[in-house]
Amino acid sequence: MGNADHAYPSNVECAHRVAIPPPKPFVKTLKNSLKETFFPDDPLRQFKNQPLSRRFVLGLQYFLPILEWAPRYTFEFLKSDLIAGITIASLAIPQGISYAKLANLPPIFGLYSSFVPPLVYAMMGSSRDLAVGTVAVASLLTASMLGDEVDAKENPTLYLHLAFTATFFAGVFQACLGLLRLGFIVDFLSHATIVGFMAGAATVVCLQQLKAILGLEHFTQGTDLVSVMRSVFSQTHKWRWESGVLGCCFLFFLISTRYFSKRKPKFFWISAMAPLTTVILGSLLVYLTHAEKHGVQVIGELKKGLNPPSFGDLVFVSPYLMVAIKTGIITGVIALAEGIAVGRSFSMFKNYHIDGNKEMIAFGTMNIVGSCTSCYLTTGPFSRSAVNYNAGCKTAVSNIVMAVAVMFTLLFLTPLFHYTPLVVLAAIIISAMLGLIDYEAAMHLWHVDKFDFIVCMSAYLGVVFGSVTIGLVIAISISLLRVLLFVARPRTLVMGNIPESMIYRNVEQYPNANNVPGILILEIDAPIYFTNASYLRERIARWIDEEEDRIKSSGETGLQYVILDMSAVGNIDTSGISMLEEMKKTTERRGLKLVLANPGGEVMKKLNKSKFIENIGQEWIYLTVGEAVGACNYMLHTCKSNPAKKDDQAETWNNV
Amino acid sequence: MGNADHAYPSNVECAHRVAIPPPKPFVKTLKNSLKETFFPDDPLRQFKNQPLSRRFVLGLQYFLPILEWAPRYTFEFLKSDLIAGITIASLAIPQGISYAKLANLPPIFGLYSSFVPPLVYAMMGSSRDLAVGTVAVASLLTASMLGDEVDAKENPTLYLHLAFTATFFAGVFQACLGLLRLGFIVDFLSHATIVGFMAGAATVVCLQQLKAILGLEHFTQGTDLVSVMRSVFSQTHKWRWESGVLGCCFLFFLISTRYFSKRKPKFFWISAMAPLTTVILGSLLVYLTHAEKHGVQVIGELKKGLNPPSFGDLVFVSPYLMVAIKTGIITGVIALAEGIAVGRSFSMFKNYHIDGNKEMIAFGTMNIVGSCTSCYLTTGPFSRSAVNYNAGCKTAVSNIVMAVAVMFTLLFLTPLFHYTPLVVLAAIIISAMLGLIDYEAAMHLWHVDKFDFIVCMSAYLGVVFGSVTIGLVIAISISLLRVLLFVARPRTLVMGNIPESMIYRNVEQYPNANNVPGILILEIDAPIYFTNASYLRERIARWIDEEEDRIKSSGETGLQYVILDMSAVGNIDTSGISMLEEMKKTTERRGLKLVLANPGGEVMKKLNKSKFIENIGQEWIYLTVGEAVGACNYMLHTCKSNPAKKDDQAETWNNV
Repeated sequence: MGNADHAYPSNVECAHRVAIPPPKPFVKTLKNSLKETFFPDDPLRQFKNQPLSRRFVLGLQYFLPILEWAPRYTFEFLKSDLIAGITIASLAIPQGISYAKLANLPPIFGLYSSFVPPLVYAMMGSSRDLAVGTVAVASLLTASMLGDEVDAKENPTLYLHLAFTATFFAGVFQACLGLLRLGFIVDFLSHATIVGFMAGAATVVCLQQLKAILGLEHFTQGTDLVSVMRSVFSQTHKWRWESGVLGCCFLFFLISTRYFSKRKPKFFWISAMAPLTTVILGSLLVYLTHAEKHGVQVIGELKKGLNPPSFGDLVFVSPYLMVAIKTGIITGVIALAEGIAVGRSFSMFKNYHIDGNKEMIAFGTMNIVGSCTSCYLTTGPFSRSAVNYNAGCKTAVSNIVMAVAVMFTLLFLTPLFHYTPLVVLAAIIISAMLGLIDYEAAMHLWHVDKFDFIVCMSAYLGVVFGSVTIGLVIAISISLLRVLLFVARPRTLVMGNIPESMIYRNVEQYPNANNVPGILILEIDAPIYFTNASYLRERIARWIDEEEDRIKSSGETGLQYVILDMSAVGNIDTSGISMLEEMKKTTERRGLKLVLANPGGEVMKKLNKSKFIENIGQEWIYLTVGEAVGACNYMLHTCKSNPAKKDDQAETWNNV
Repeated sequence: MGNADHAYPSNVECAHRVAIPPPKPFVKTLKNSLKETFFPDDPLRQFKNQPLSRRFVLGLQYFLPILEWAPRYTFEFLKSDLIAGITIASLAIPQGISYAKLANLPPIFGLYSSFVPPLVYAMMGSSRDLAVGTVAVASLLTASMLGDEVDAKENPTLYLHLAFTATFFAGVFQACLGLLRLGFIVDFLSHATIVGFMAGAATVVCLQQLKAILGLEHFTQGTDLVSVMRSVFSQTHKWRWESGVLGCCFLFFLISTRYFSKRKPKFFWISAMAPLTTVILGSLLVYLTHAEKHGVQVIGELKKGLNPPSFGDLVFVSPYLMVAIKTGIITGVIALAEGIAVGRSFSMFKNYHIDGNKEMIAFGTMNIVGSCTSCYLTTGPFSRSAVNYNAGCKTAVSNIVMAVAVMFTLLFLTPLFHYTPLVVLAAIIISAMLGLIDYEAAMHLWHVDKFDFIVCMSAYLGVVFGSVTIGLVIAISISLLRVLLFVARPRTLVMGNIPESMIYRNVEQYPNANNVPGILILEIDAPIYFTNASYLRERIARWIDEEEDRIKSSGETGLQYVILDMSAVGNIDTSGISMLEEMKKTTERRGLKLVLANPGGEVMKKLNKSKFIENIGQEWIYLTVGEAVGACNYMLHTCKSNPAKKDDQAETWNNV
């Protein structure tokens, strides 16, 4: 160490060896990485060191969280849950009817779907704030995907049965994702994708309401802006002003209550009660003025009674099975993404934990049971859950209260909805949808991350001008492309010395970092895989070319060493190793020495197995960039006369 | 600084600020990242500061490299190229005929394809060693993909025209990839994929030769092992022993010459001439013994004359257009991957540079021109190029020599091939294919990287038991899945202090690293994106849980700080930022302080824009883990009495 101090800062420490991690048996490595992939939260931890009976109870509680919190349930909780439950029921009934219309299903199925699934969720769900019900986007998707195969008007029974079947498959898919611990598939829908997609879907749903608002009888099957506009403006002579006026008034009423409740959160119940109020007002108005005979369409008769069983209605025969499975999987994922995002947001507010995989099992079971009891796809809609939260719900009992209220409605109150005008339902849907267009989030994306904004806008435009599926596919492809592009085009950055330290950082971020004469230090920003190996080879060659050009023009010491900082290289594959081998050859041919700094455990293991470490020489791999520069500087100054001796000197350096 | 020395190593330096990179205008950032994505090799660099006329010459030379090297061409070069060219011609003629049979095309088109394309490549290609010709895998793929649409026996003219059209689209696609600088698409075929795919394709091609070897007249259309075996063993009574004996003898001869030449590279010409020798011997044998009347199938009549124009034959009409485009794109990519890999390997041996995008333009033009002159898909086959290299070729002139030799054959020698038995062609194909089964490479993959081995084997098994396309799709999907999984499941590692240093490294790789009491240091190994944000949140929460459990049982100082080493986090998106915000909240709620170490430029920029830096406090972001630990230790020892003062103390620490 003593004779080196003329060449590099004197506070440099003795060079440390880069360790090759201790070898592990293949089975153990595999087990470990499977656990990291599928059980990152280690759900079995609490089962460890417990007697068998306790394990059984814990296992039961895992699948039925109600067993966990029910014993601690108090009368105080019940009061809060009762108020919250009745509030959401008053929202659930008109929304259920509206969204069923959106899915081209008879309105009664919207009420059925607000009865059984909430009961199932109350037992199995781990969120305390989620209110279960149908959602607009999934309803629209069901209509458009099933509608491609079966016309809901020509063959309503088959269409209905297909909707149950799709719900069944959505449930199976959701439960499987949870059971197979594949919850991370939902993570592939990024926040930006969801913002754009939801806004697009909300726009499309609003456009669809023009049919009811304008009182049109024929309407396009397409959901895109162009077809809707063409359909609306090609039949201006059929617009009904009665319907339009009614719709606009109710919409104005709903929006102003929303606005008011937003300004004064204490009066949340005003906006929560508003939909039911408009339904009652609208129905009374029609009943008294007989407006149904003057072009105002009404719901008509609703059957009294609870959900009939529908297990026998599921269609598992060939020509329709595929479309049911496809619809089920796509709507299932969308519904899951919304439900889990909603659950997670509220759990964060109240600081309790939600297990994504457990939630998926709950959603899945809820939809499987639902499909057998005349319900279609349900999840945790944002609007209803927010009302639930604002109404002060404490546990999932609020869902039970809502279910009981809906049951009561189904048993006794359905005839009251006979005169409810469709235009009121349209107004309810529009006012709910406007809340989903989150332009502030889009502005935030533009501000922070342009690429996320592009993803968001392409999802939006894809949905509005194409279709819901097209928008989704575009947005997911762009998101994935970005991830792939990150791996295919990692950044390589030149590093320099931060003044008065042994720290090396990239000169782009730290413009005051100084480069070291005769040494080019490069940082590689990503794992070296087949996707980027040849790019990295070319890019590093260009860095060397440029550095040599710069040196030539400035007359500095000639380039002698290329140090690659591998700190950020998390992994390497065989293509990457070949790239390093090639690069070693080409740099040597140019009279340069390749030096590695801080390769990680995984990388060292593979470099060792492929004999690259022997090839480059263990003495050319350093623990930090600082030590590598120290060693290179030492050799630059002692080996000037005889560059061939570099290797011996490196050995000496490592042994001092 | 003075009062801190009781808490951390005294050689710690004053804390450095983490810089937010200087802001750049959006357009400049965009331009820069587009350049990095599409022009990593900066091909326009040589055009800088040159007069206009010089730029024109350079531009012309860019597209026609022959203009660059032709002026320096010498007589010495010509001698070498002449020998190499004649050698490869003797291989090209029988191979061309064989592969045309493999593509279900009349044999003469194999010869046509060895005439025009080599001439085009000689002008435009930048490799000096590549010998142009048809390849077995692409021929087989053409046959299987076009064969799904049109039967080559029932409608040979349409089939032929579709083959030309597919070649045309392959050329257009290849040229577009080059012109649009999208060469990196080829990089998505990893080394492991290619090894497995090539071996699988070779196996399949060999299996197909059983038809000719056994002299069967009917044969399955399928290429998979099961159908071929069923087809072969269902007609054992039709096996022709004459054909079998002939085939085995020739195969033995070819394999032994190969083996001999491999042992003694000086005698490369023996294996290079062997195919032509077998053709001559086989034809003579048949001619003299009239074996064609005893079940030995022969080529039959070949038309004399050069390539007829085929531009008018291209099929651009609806029912066939799609299959031609699909076939063109898939075979085009496969051919490109082989050609570029071959060109790159030889350029590495001889140390000259090959520009991938330029090569693509050359291959593309060659196939477009070829499709108009009765050629089907050509590329740079490995076997022919290796012979060219061994024969001592110096420039692409060897391709011109080969083309002239083939032209001579087409004009005068085609009648000589009348009696060439098909079984000889089969033997030639098999012996060439055996060289493609690179089991040593597969063993190496198993040894170095188990995952790459899985990719390789799935490509192999997919091709052998499914079809060429299935194998390719499986292998590419698995490769991409791995890349996505890497981003979806980044590793988080606990770091410890390397004894007697300020360096912190993960304890898995460095088992001697010591953890710091009261501080949990975690390293995140990948960019934080939507795909991994929620995983990271859960995984880090589990690390904290586990650390607290460990501390509880061991009675150490309670956990106070969580330091995240962000060195390897190359980028972050809005989902990632939300994750950090959430994590800050949850750690604070547990009474822990979140500290960041060394976030990179891109990350700092986004954290700053999203106000996360203000949120966490600039004083909680350190340049190195060492400095972060120093600061935390300092506060652990001075703030024990009043943890609430942490923030003030951090400010003090940063100002000392």
